[in-house]
Amino acid sequence: MKTFNITSPDKAIREALIDKINNLTKPKGSLGRLEELALQIGLIQQTLNPMLKNPQNIIFAADHGIVDEGVSLSPKEITWQQISNFLHGGAGINFLCRQHGFELKIVDAGVDYDLPYEKGIIDMKVRKSTRNYLHEAAMTKEEMDLCIERGAEIVHRSHEEGCNLISFGEMGIGNTSSSSIWMTCFTNIPLEQCVGAGSGLDNEGIRHKYNVLKQALDNYQGDHSTEDILCYFGGLEMVMAVGAMLQAAELHMVILIDGFIMTNCILAASKLYPEVLEYAIFGHCGDESGHKSVLDALGVKPLLNLDLRLGEGSGAICAYPIVDSAVRMINEMDNFAHASITKYF
Amino acid sequence: MKTFNITSPDKAIREALIDKINNLTKPKGSLGRLEELALQIGLIQQTLNPMLKNPQNIIFAADHGIVDEGVSLSPKEITWQQISNFLHGGAGINFLCRQHGFELKIVDAGVDYDLPYEKGIIDMKVRKSTRNYLHEAAMTKEEMDLCIERGAEIVHRSHEEGCNLISFGEMGIGNTSSSSIWMTCFTNIPLEQCVGAGSGLDNEGIRHKYNVLKQALDNYQGDHSTEDILCYFGGLEMVMAVGAMLQAAELHMVILIDGFIMTNCILAASKLYPEVLEYAIFGHCGDESGHKSVLDALGVKPLLNLDLRLGEGSGAICAYPIVDSAVRMINEMDNFAHASITKYF
Repeated sequence: MKTFNITSPDKAIREALIDKINNLTKPKGSLGRLEELALQIGLIQQTLNPMLKNPQNIIFAADHGIVDEGVSLSPKEITWQQISNFLHGGAGINFLCRQHGFELKIVDAGVDYDLPYEKGIIDMKVRKSTRNYLHEAAMTKEEMDLCIERGAEIVHRSHEEGCNLISFGEMGIGNTSSSSIWMTCFTNIPLEQCVGAGSGLDNEGIRHKYNVLKQALDNYQGDHSTEDILCYFGGLEMVMAVGAMLQAAELHMVILIDGFIMTNCILAASKLYPEVLEYAIFGHCGDESGHKSVLDALGVKPLLNLDLRLGEGSGAICAYPIVDSAVRMINEMDNFAHASITKYF
Repeated sequence: MKTFNITSPDKAIREALIDKINNLTKPKGSLGRLEELALQIGLIQQTLNPMLKNPQNIIFAADHGIVDEGVSLSPKEITWQQISNFLHGGAGINFLCRQHGFELKIVDAGVDYDLPYEKGIIDMKVRKSTRNYLHEAAMTKEEMDLCIERGAEIVHRSHEEGCNLISFGEMGIGNTSSSSIWMTCFTNIPLEQCVGAGSGLDNEGIRHKYNVLKQALDNYQGDHSTEDILCYFGGLEMVMAVGAMLQAAELHMVILIDGFIMTNCILAASKLYPEVLEYAIFGHCGDESGHKSVLDALGVKPLLNLDLRLGEGSGAICAYPIVDSAVRMINEMDNFAHASITKYF
C-alpha cells in the first residue's frame, strides 16, 4: 500500500495562538468551540493568521455487492441516479455547496453503471461494484491499493488548485453496512450497536441487516489486520476516501468529516496513521445509529447535531460556516489593548 | 402596556409544505432539522417558497443597578466600552454579522454613560441604568411601558426596511442576574439552578450572586404578575427585547433567539402572548448554567451547542446559515418526479 508522511503539527506556535485568542475582546473562552477550532487550524497551518482557501467537497461514489442480500431499503440504481442529480444541481449537496462556496467534485470509484464522464464526473473507477463480502473479499489487495492511490491523486489535484480545506462525502447504496463492520472491527464495539437504519430500514430490516453482517463476519477467515479489514469489507468509495484523507493530512490540509460513513473512513485511516485525526474537524453527529458511538470511540466532538442522515458531505458542509467563523474570529476581532477596553475574564 | 395582535400561523398550508419537503430528492426526513425549519418558516411566511430578506441583528444595551452588589465579574464600564468596540467593528458580533450579511443595529436602552449617538447608536434610552432591585423596583411601570413601545418601534423600522428575519442580542453587565430571576419566576425552576457564572465568576462568586438574588426575591413584595416581574427585576434592554419580539411576531417575522438572556426574554414574552414562540428559532444552547434548563422548560431544541457565552446575538448569528440552508433546501432541491429518480424512503 502507498505510504504517507503524516506528522503532528508543530506545537511551538501553540502558546502564541492561545495568547492571541485570549486577548480578543470577549470574556476568555466565551466563543467556546470557535476558539478551539481557531487553535486547531492555526496549528495545522502554522500561522497566527490562518486562512481557508478554495474549499472543495469530494463525493466518492460506488456500489456494493452486499446489497444483493437485501441490507438496504434503497435500490442500487439510486447510486447512479443521484449522481445524475448532482450533475444537474438538484441534490441536497448542491445547494449547500452553492451556499458556502464549495467546489463540488464527483468521483466514480466503482459505480455499477456506465456514467457520462463527459459531463464532469471524474473517472477513477477501480471496478464496477465490490464483490459480495458475505461470500468473498469485497476487493483484491491490488484494487484496494488502486483506491488508496486514486484517492490521494484526487486530493493532490485539489491542493494544486489552491484548496486548503477539503470535505469528503459519499454516495453508495449499501455503504452503511461496510461502515458498521469497519466500526465493530476497529473499535470493538459490538456489531449490534454499529448497525442502523441506513436510508430508512424498519426494525425488521435492521435485524436482517445485522444477521447478514454477523454472518459475513463469521465467514471471514482473514488476518484481522487493518489492511485486510479494509479490503475484505470495504467499499471502493470508502477506501478511496481513506487514501484521500491520508493525502490531505500529509499536505497539511484541514479535513472536514461528514457523517457515519466518513467517520468510519477516518477511523480506518487513523488505524494506519493516528496523526491524521489532528487534521480532522468533525462536522456533525448524524441520525444513523452508531454515529455517536464511533465519534465517542474516537474521542471527538462534532460541531452539529441536526439529525441529518443524507451523506453526500451534507453535514460537513452545514458545519463549514462555523469553521469559517473561527478563522474570521482570530483574524478580524480586535484585542483589548488596541480597542482600549478593560480586559475582563 | 402596549397590546399586540399575535396569532398562530394559519395551518392550512401545512400539508402542502410537508408534501413538498417529502418529495425533494433525499430519503424522507434525512435533512432532519433543516426540514423542520423549512416547515416552520413556510408556515410563518404562508408560502411554499419562503425567502429570508435583509436580516438584522439588534443589540439592546443597558446597565443594571444590581451590579453594585458585586454580582458580576466584569466592571460596569464594559457595557459602554463594548458598544464602542461594536462601532469600530472589532467585536465578536461584528465579524459574524459581516460573515452572514446581517445589518447590525445598536440600541441604547439604558446605558449609564453619554454615548456618541452621532456615530450611529440608536438612542432609545429610557433611563441611565435600572435601580438596584435588591432594595426597590428596577424600573417604574411607565419606564417598562416605554421599553416595550420602543422595542416595538425598532422592529417596525426594520420591517419597513424589508427585513423579515430578525435576531436580538444584548450588552449589559449584570443581565444574567435579571435573567436568572425571570427564569425562576416564570418556570418555577429553583433559583439555584438558574444562576450561573455570567462572564466568568468562580464558585464563590456564583454563591454570592445566588445569595444576592435570593435576598432580592425574599425582599420582593409585588403581585407576581408577569408585568410586575418584568418591571421589578428586569433590565431595560431585556424589556425592550420583549417588546421587540412581540412586535416581530405580530409582523410575522422570523425571530432568531440568542443565548441565556434572550431565551429568558422570549420566555417572558410567551407569558404575555404564548403564540410568540411559533415565530422563534432558538440559535444555540450556550455555556451559561441554566440555559439548557430554560430551553427544556420552553420545550424547544436549539440548533447549535458550541459552548458560547458571549451574548451580543453571537449564537443566533452563528446558527443563521442553518436557517438559510433550510430555506435554500425547499427552494433549490429538485423533486423525485422532475429528476427522474426512483423515490426512496
